[in-house]
Amino acid sequence: MRDAYHEELDSIGDGLVEMARLVGSAIGRATTAILDADLKLAESVIAGDEKVDDLQHDLEARAIALLARQQPVATDLRIVVTSLRMSADLERSGDLAQHVGKLARLRFPDTAVPGDLHATILEMGQLAQRLMAKAAEVIITKDVDLALQLEQDDDEMDRLHRTLFQHLMDDRWKHGIETAVDVTLLGRYYERFADHAVSVAKRVVFLVTGEHADELTPAATAIEDV
Amino acid sequence: MRDAYHEELDSIGDGLVEMARLVGSAIGRATTAILDADLKLAESVIAGDEKVDDLQHDLEARAIALLARQQPVATDLRIVVTSLRMSADLERSGDLAQHVGKLARLRFPDTAVPGDLHATILEMGQLAQRLMAKAAEVIITKDVDLALQLEQDDDEMDRLHRTLFQHLMDDRWKHGIETAVDVTLLGRYYERFADHAVSVAKRVVFLVTGEHADELTPAATAIEDV
Repeated sequence: MRDAYHEELDSIGDGLVEMARLVGSAIGRATTAILDADLKLAESVIAGDEKVDDLQHDLEARAIALLARQQPVATDLRIVVTSLRMSADLERSGDLAQHVGKLARLRFPDTAVPGDLHATILEMGQLAQRLMAKAAEVIITKDVDLALQLEQDDDEMDRLHRTLFQHLMDDRWKHGIETAVDVTLLGRYYERFADHAVSVAKRVVFLVTGEHADELTPAATAIEDV
Repeated sequence: MRDAYHEELDSIGDGLVEMARLVGSAIGRATTAILDADLKLAESVIAGDEKVDDLQHDLEARAIALLARQQPVATDLRIVVTSLRMSADLERSGDLAQHVGKLARLRFPDTAVPGDLHATILEMGQLAQRLMAKAAEVIITKDVDLALQLEQDDDEMDRLHRTLFQHLMDDRWKHGIETAVDVTLLGRYYERFADHAVSVAKRVVFLVTGEHADELTPAATAIEDV
């Protein structure tokens, strides 16, 4: 039996899952849009971010109302505060998917991604989408092992990011500066998107175990930014 | 006369101001480090970010304790929740200053910034530091006019960012791909840093007026990403 209070708490969790699904789909569609130079798809990703923003506002309003009305303490309080943070991560992920869509639109009818980098960008886009799908699953299942697995997946994103940079720094790079700039920004967007998915999963770990995920995996490779 | 509760609330505000001052100083020092190829200064910026992270953890713990113990409602609740968000903005700004420091370290003994872009990067760094100083002032004074002024300043950051891109896209660019990548990332770091400073100020506006800053300045130029 769930009381009204826990139903509200659950509905906040549902909102987070919906946000994660929307932004996961958005990064997948944005990747297709930029690889295929598909303007319509790009436009739909760009316009679709409003729904994510609306969901976040709605979720925040409900979380704050819950705090005011029910005045939760201990674990319940931590859940509500953590939900606010997760919604911020997911909202930002939506922005990053939108950035990929905007870059696709900016370069249309060309594609921003040269042919020899298609496979790498496709992998980054797919991995980003998978990471977010797993983050959604972690929110639902509160599965700590799955959450820790996201960090391993993120190592793969770092590897792809390094591959991208190796291409950029290769003396045989022949796509010019504009494309180098585009690819640099794209790489950054996917990497940050993955960071936010990992962050969502880590926050669930903290809720479940009371320990920061970093403390559970001391041997994990640190994400190295620049 | 302030009771213990409002003293706690004030001390959270003080923590935010201290974070803003630290990250404002960090972006200034990181800019000097990258322009002068000063390794020691870069290292100090990189190491200094730990203090910002500690401050955030401390501030969050105090905010959550306050929620649990005092169970604020209405305006006071909004202040605490908004403080959590501002601390996240400031923590992220610290990361971005650290990224600039890491890029300075990576390219040492060279500088990542070619001579003809020194002036633009210096301006971006100075503007970023000024924006954060104003954000700190807005936290202290709750001055809505000053907060709205930050958005105008951010237009100047967008202008500088465009200047940077014009240099990059100029056919006469002669600094190669690696430097183009570095400059692209640097531009992104400063732009995001400025976004976070503006975000902090906007959150204060929302606290004071109950309206989102965007609604107060319908004519303001939207920040265009990509």
